[in-house]
Amino acid sequence: MIDRPTSPRRAVVLLSGGLDSATVLAIAKRDGFMPLCLSFEYGQRHRVELDAAARVAAAFESRLRLVTLDPSCFRGSALTGAGDVPRGRSESEMSAEIPETYVPARNLVFLSMALGTAESIGSRDIFIGVNAVDYSGYPDCRPEFISAFEETANLATKAGVQGDSFRIHTPLLHLSKSRIIQTGTDLGVDYALTSSCYDPDNQGLACGRCDSCALRRKGFEDAGVPDPTRYAPGPMQ
Amino acid sequence: MIDRPTSPRRAVVLLSGGLDSATVLAIAKRDGFMPLCLSFEYGQRHRVELDAAARVAAAFESRLRLVTLDPSCFRGSALTGAGDVPRGRSESEMSAEIPETYVPARNLVFLSMALGTAESIGSRDIFIGVNAVDYSGYPDCRPEFISAFEETANLATKAGVQGDSFRIHTPLLHLSKSRIIQTGTDLGVDYALTSSCYDPDNQGLACGRCDSCALRRKGFEDAGVPDPTRYAPGPMQ
Repeated sequence: MIDRPTSPRRAVVLLSGGLDSATVLAIAKRDGFMPLCLSFEYGQRHRVELDAAARVAAAFESRLRLVTLDPSCFRGSALTGAGDVPRGRSESEMSAEIPETYVPARNLVFLSMALGTAESIGSRDIFIGVNAVDYSGYPDCRPEFISAFEETANLATKAGVQGDSFRIHTPLLHLSKSRIIQTGTDLGVDYALTSSCYDPDNQGLACGRCDSCALRRKGFEDAGVPDPTRYAPGPMQ
Repeated sequence: MIDRPTSPRRAVVLLSGGLDSATVLAIAKRDGFMPLCLSFEYGQRHRVELDAAARVAAAFESRLRLVTLDPSCFRGSALTGAGDVPRGRSESEMSAEIPETYVPARNLVFLSMALGTAESIGSRDIFIGVNAVDYSGYPDCRPEFISAFEETANLATKAGVQGDSFRIHTPLLHLSKSRIIQTGTDLGVDYALTSSCYDPDNQGLACGRCDSCALRRKGFEDAGVPDPTRYAPGPMQ
């Protein structure tokens, strides 16, 4: 007989369909959680990532809930229609400032919705794939934001106030992209199912040149893992 | 000529359609803000409050945006379908514990969506009608929650990180219900437009006996202001 817990703990996993969140789902499963994945449609131009989220959830035999959010709450970002996605930037350019692909309050909204969902289903564990190393300069990917959110979550909720605290799991927070890829590969993540590009073409092929593609490509190179990404034809630098 | 600022500051005002948020809108207008009101449909049984929100916003010549949220993120509350709304409780019974009408993470989600909206439109001011006196025991109406949220908001956002901070305005936080009603009456709020009942009948008439009705009725009595609420026929205690 296999020795395993009879009643795995439930967890809410934020699953964008990208490389990081797919790895987080694999980690949550490894750690014995029964995940409910949440994906958000918020007017993002790379809506194709939601198809990737469905593929990844299915591969890990996990439930996925697609949540639609009013896009009018997330304007002013290159990811939601305001201007072009930057391309061909170096890593130092990426980390110099908060990029135009920043989406107002996105991770705060996602985590808040995950918190409501978690309390609704009796879960106290929320997983998110934020990363403060190759993080493209987003304020809502930093450890100080996550700590503040966790504290706020435990003041906002019935369970939190009663001492049955919520925990925000950020297993990728201090990992390099290559280490994330190595971890996920060891856990059986098929990265061919995932989609990271900020501005894929209408067949879902990655541009290869936005910040997200650049970090992903370098991650596979550094990890020594073949890059399964399907890139659109054209210049790749 | 009327002496007024030529470019009033924009604010996001959470407007449920109840007594408190209507008063908050009046205060935001008094303080010179140009409000964008947000109302949320989240599967609440008292959906009639959204009609009230539209009436109140119109009365104050303010824009209203109705935002739909996935109701599956807010289950397990008597307000979203799980069990009956408590009725006929005394004030001591109300304050003894977190009531069944608590909705998981509701104010955190509302404030987070307000924050995304505010940053999208260039506003740094968010108004919410939380109240810690006659507050029915909700954890997300307490000052410690609001303070933690404000801190989190300024870590989560581009503007906050750059020192252009967001402020969460809670002008009702330490007011009694009667004082709120006096304040709103002085500012021209027509409380006949508002709806507070947790479980109105299908004509929108208030039950008069849920916690929210009980606090509202007592507020009008204590304020010495005629109660304009339209109650359903039946016992009123």
